[in-house]
Amino acid sequence: MTSPSGTTDRILALPGRSQRAAAAKTSPVRDLLALTERPEVISFAGGLPAPELFDLDGIRASFDDVLHTPKVLQYSPSEGNPTLREEVARRYTDDGLDTAASDLIVTTGSQQGLGLLSTALLDPGDRILVEEPCYLAALQTFALAGARVVGVPYIGDELDLDALDRLAAEHSPKFFYTVPTFQNPTGRTHGLAARRLIAETAMRRGFRIVEDEPYRQLRYSGDPLPSLSTFAPEHVLSLGSFSKVIAPGLRIGWIRTTADVRPTVTIAKQAADLHTSTVDQAAAAHYLLSGRGEPALERIRVAYDDRRDAMLGGLPAALPAGSSWNRPDGGMFVWARLPEEMDASAMLTRALAHDVAYVPGAPFFAGPADDRALRLSFTTYAPDRISEGLSRLGIALGSAG
Amino acid sequence: MTSPSGTTDRILALPGRSQRAAAAKTSPVRDLLALTERPEVISFAGGLPAPELFDLDGIRASFDDVLHTPKVLQYSPSEGNPTLREEVARRYTDDGLDTAASDLIVTTGSQQGLGLLSTALLDPGDRILVEEPCYLAALQTFALAGARVVGVPYIGDELDLDALDRLAAEHSPKFFYTVPTFQNPTGRTHGLAARRLIAETAMRRGFRIVEDEPYRQLRYSGDPLPSLSTFAPEHVLSLGSFSKVIAPGLRIGWIRTTADVRPTVTIAKQAADLHTSTVDQAAAAHYLLSGRGEPALERIRVAYDDRRDAMLGGLPAALPAGSSWNRPDGGMFVWARLPEEMDASAMLTRALAHDVAYVPGAPFFAGPADDRALRLSFTTYAPDRISEGLSRLGIALGSAG
Repeated sequence: MTSPSGTTDRILALPGRSQRAAAAKTSPVRDLLALTERPEVISFAGGLPAPELFDLDGIRASFDDVLHTPKVLQYSPSEGNPTLREEVARRYTDDGLDTAASDLIVTTGSQQGLGLLSTALLDPGDRILVEEPCYLAALQTFALAGARVVGVPYIGDELDLDALDRLAAEHSPKFFYTVPTFQNPTGRTHGLAARRLIAETAMRRGFRIVEDEPYRQLRYSGDPLPSLSTFAPEHVLSLGSFSKVIAPGLRIGWIRTTADVRPTVTIAKQAADLHTSTVDQAAAAHYLLSGRGEPALERIRVAYDDRRDAMLGGLPAALPAGSSWNRPDGGMFVWARLPEEMDASAMLTRALAHDVAYVPGAPFFAGPADDRALRLSFTTYAPDRISEGLSRLGIALGSAG
Repeated sequence: MTSPSGTTDRILALPGRSQRAAAAKTSPVRDLLALTERPEVISFAGGLPAPELFDLDGIRASFDDVLHTPKVLQYSPSEGNPTLREEVARRYTDDGLDTAASDLIVTTGSQQGLGLLSTALLDPGDRILVEEPCYLAALQTFALAGARVVGVPYIGDELDLDALDRLAAEHSPKFFYTVPTFQNPTGRTHGLAARRLIAETAMRRGFRIVEDEPYRQLRYSGDPLPSLSTFAPEHVLSLGSFSKVIAPGLRIGWIRTTADVRPTVTIAKQAADLHTSTVDQAAAAHYLLSGRGEPALERIRVAYDDRRDAMLGGLPAALPAGSSWNRPDGGMFVWARLPEEMDASAMLTRALAHDVAYVPGAPFFAGPADDRALRLSFTTYAPDRISEGLSRLGIALGSAG
């Protein structure tokens, strides 16, 4: 084959990206966060844990201890470090949910858990249900799997359970994805009655539940609530993570699988990255056994509790009259709504001009967005900086006076 | 909805696994390796690097050094640690292939690179070409992506380049996957002329090349060969890894991407696991800068060279008359063929009875298998143990006398 110019190469165009990749977009929040990185900005936009609360000395000691045998640098089983799985299983069991080490597959952060479950359970075109709004990176993963995502709306701070039932009947979803405790982005928690009804709906309509629990241990008030698995043990796959309770840089999470899904998830894990970092898993297992994790987590809880209170204390003066927001018992986020006809994305420009930032709620919606909504993270600043940031926000939004 | 027994739940069956997951199988080699784990077995079946050659002290020192700042435990950019990317780019450039840090995306092992490129480039039903036989875990990843895999045969130890051209014309593949240097499972290497022709075929027929190079730096004889990217810079995506040259437990690899694919691969990486372990990347970057990596790699090369020679020296007596095998210039594997009518899978039972093991070649074929072929790994034993293992193999296969 020869082109008019006489060269023989570069005649055919290269194949393009896949259709499923074309359906996924880079995170708009990520792009926006670039704007908030000026050091003078007080940013409530991030979703990061506070690095000054990481137990750096304890974690370094664990790495140092395990790095005396070469096997922590070798390939290791796809299912994960046996000691780590036993320790996580023990914590579930102590928490009221009987769990064996063999029920757990270690993942490279719980984000990978979402991908593995998508691989194991979804073919392109399959439908799934999500909370509306929903954790953004989950939406991205489901888009890459070619799934058709249907949002289940809220009525106030409560999931619309009739809509869940109706949408399940209409779409025959493969699963319902939920962050039941201190959700990202809303900070919302499904109460005991709602948990029971969600599980019953799953059993009646024949769909699975993917329960994502990164924030469960970050509770500052109120009573712990049982896993959805308690009410529908064969229907619920749970994701857990050390990212918010030890440190995210280790990228260690897990899937608590049901027996029928386990072999398929294991194959998906092998194909994804063979296994999670051997040394990070060994250090995490060592750290759990060291007993340093509980007091470190308690320090995190106490600090975040203060920070949440600082935010909730400052919001009445910071947001314009007619705004509303919730009061989460834990987690990292408060979800607020500006008064009618006020657009949170448009207002962000004004906030940034006053060196304060938040995330508009719109990108978190699978369907039509609530343009008045915004997410405020309270974890990364001390209370006085939170108050200062909220003062700036009040000025930016014209709330003062 | 109520069942005859009056209960309302468990009426509908749970949704099953995805079609793509059903198409993938657990690794048969993995299942077989379980049989070789008796301590008395000398196993040439594994594909592991030798753990006694890991630079444990150097790597521990790097972890200890970086674990003095909390940012190594925090979330980090999806593209990877900037210093690490710069150091890897510098090594490519020193090696003759101009590379910028921005060309590289760090992956959780090169296995993840295969998955990210599959996500970015493949929709279910798309065709790809692979070498026949092919790296097994790659076949698994492509199966999970729903790809239709077409094997390109060899003529002796040389890829059949006419078949490559013909199959490309017939199937319009999205890419050709190759391990060009010291391939797993065969130890084969594409020579300079073959590299040029593979690249020209890709340009003429309009397909990409995914070049997987985990063994490139494990050369014990002969001259280094250029990357396929040298001949078709816009068509070639390269995968690299520290697994065989530093340690696999860190799970650090990378994709050297072309500009058109980079944004899509970045989105796929975000969705896969947000980013690779921050602390492992920081420690690897520190280790590269420490200067300890080069002498450690040289120790590995010298040891593996001896082990390869021990294997090549022992094979004439170990394999039955009429067998053949190759003499790789590097890597970890020798590929052998038993005499006509001798089945390598059947013979393995006999080998195990004599406490020696290898991997039959059959599972590595995408299409009809060569039942006489087997893979022998020479990396994990000292020369005298290799000789002892080959003596046992000779007795098992009735080669003596």
